[in-house]
Amino acid sequence: MPCTLLPGANDTLLLASIPTLSAQAGAAYAALLAGIAITLRATAHKVELVHRLQAAGLCEIEVTSFVSPKWVPQMADNIGVMSGLRRQVNVRYGVLVPNVKGLEAALPTGPDEVVVFGAASEAFSQRNINCSIAESIERFRPVVAAAHDASLKVRCAISCSLGCPYQGGVSADEVERVVMLMKDIGLDHCGVADTIGVGTPKQVQAAMERALKHYPLHEVSGHFHDTYGQALANIYACLEMGIHTFDASIAGLGGCPYAKGATGNVATEDVVFMLDGLDIETGIDLDTLVDAGAFISEMLGRPPVSRAGKALPAKRAT
Amino acid sequence: MPCTLLPGANDTLLLASIPTLSAQAGAAYAALLAGIAITLRATAHKVELVHRLQAAGLCEIEVTSFVSPKWVPQMADNIGVMSGLRRQVNVRYGVLVPNVKGLEAALPTGPDEVVVFGAASEAFSQRNINCSIAESIERFRPVVAAAHDASLKVRCAISCSLGCPYQGGVSADEVERVVMLMKDIGLDHCGVADTIGVGTPKQVQAAMERALKHYPLHEVSGHFHDTYGQALANIYACLEMGIHTFDASIAGLGGCPYAKGATGNVATEDVVFMLDGLDIETGIDLDTLVDAGAFISEMLGRPPVSRAGKALPAKRAT
Repeated sequence: MPCTLLPGANDTLLLASIPTLSAQAGAAYAALLAGIAITLRATAHKVELVHRLQAAGLCEIEVTSFVSPKWVPQMADNIGVMSGLRRQVNVRYGVLVPNVKGLEAALPTGPDEVVVFGAASEAFSQRNINCSIAESIERFRPVVAAAHDASLKVRCAISCSLGCPYQGGVSADEVERVVMLMKDIGLDHCGVADTIGVGTPKQVQAAMERALKHYPLHEVSGHFHDTYGQALANIYACLEMGIHTFDASIAGLGGCPYAKGATGNVATEDVVFMLDGLDIETGIDLDTLVDAGAFISEMLGRPPVSRAGKALPAKRAT
Repeated sequence: MPCTLLPGANDTLLLASIPTLSAQAGAAYAALLAGIAITLRATAHKVELVHRLQAAGLCEIEVTSFVSPKWVPQMADNIGVMSGLRRQVNVRYGVLVPNVKGLEAALPTGPDEVVVFGAASEAFSQRNINCSIAESIERFRPVVAAAHDASLKVRCAISCSLGCPYQGGVSADEVERVVMLMKDIGLDHCGVADTIGVGTPKQVQAAMERALKHYPLHEVSGHFHDTYGQALANIYACLEMGIHTFDASIAGLGGCPYAKGATGNVATEDVVFMLDGLDIETGIDLDTLVDAGAFISEMLGRPPVSRAGKALPAKRAT
């Protein structure tokens, strides 16, 4: 997700869906932050997708981003999408902002929260935004301050927390350094993101432990691309630590233009299938969610990457 | 896997790959039993696949089955495949046998072990082999006795242990009942199989607990189809219980003709990627394994289902 907003990203764009979960089962509940990166230009389709996601029970939806249209032309309709929403009181609508200019454009559209991002890999930061990690995060300080002035919550996403397409391995120390920088500029929530999907459960837990040294359990989330098929195992490993907020992407859409072979964020449908099986109440209706995934996949003319999103309709057809 | 041998299976066949793992990391090590169901008729390709799998370090390979060619025509070359093998002393070669006739045909080919199967779901058993679970397992008693007379190890696979396409849910009680029946007829090893891929980690652990009441840790294995994307999370949950033997399928090939929308067993490449990340030594070289998956996928003219099997070649190409 974070990398789709960097300069050069072109044919993917971040649209939708940060479900936060509502209900609880015993001590365990889970929040899903589902983002989808889509190539779709039709504003009405984006709006309908958000409506379908909230109808499915998602309570936090990352709707769009306020990056320069030069970077991501498909995001040029961000105001149109935000203003087209039929909002529900129990849903939080988030937007990504890369800088103060983006925040200023976003504020009139009334987001509930904004998201900023930085990389845990120095090589990734240098190569993609041509500055150090520390410099890139320092640039968010006025964004965070202005968002707080507007009473908005600010989340961060720390990309490449489990590996980097340029430098390879990324250590827990490197993750914690960025967590601390994010904390220092006032971020309310810390998202640990495996942009290229190379993380495995123990490494994920080691990175999460570092985030938990600086943020409370309910303000740490995981974001796992499913490039190597590891995402659900990683989410399960996080659940065992008590972490219960995860980004996910309807139909598994998305990817990262900077990591060859990278696939999208884990499919929301697959995550909800697992949570249902674990008796973790999410307030999300899997059938409605699968229909939302089928809708957007049809609009995009490609099959859902989600395994549950493919298997459930096949089962229904029998 | 088991269901590909039932009457009516036609265009899939079980070929290869039960890697057992060799090396150890601390107390943890893992054994992979990889099976692939392929439509390939060319004997030479099947033999080459086995050779590639053993070159990758797999130590248990399920090579073929001795079912009636009327059921699975592609298996008609089972003797040709077995006799074409360039065997390695550290590799165990297994074959599936549905009955005494199959065993008698298999014995001259010199397998190291044979595999029999039954369902944990009464509905599945009735519907597919037209007899009760108990009757179907009783029929294996002479197979097990004859195999033991020939000093062969006999494994069982209990299909539909986590769910059934006909009856829906399958309880841990139902699984344990079959485990006990298998134990009673003398099975040496108990495989718990999620044929339709609907299991999630806690349910898997509950089923495995029942198997472990009757079999030691090293004689219990997991077999997880990845239909709903849950397989790696389930394997991780098994590893946490100490279970360290898993079936897997190179390139994720396979499926189940009796469960619409069912995909193959979890891809060996994805499992090994996770085990590598967990520092669990397997003795398997992932690159060689990915090449084996690419080979068989090319022979079959379809892309590998394995996510790691797709991502690693893409990364190499950069």
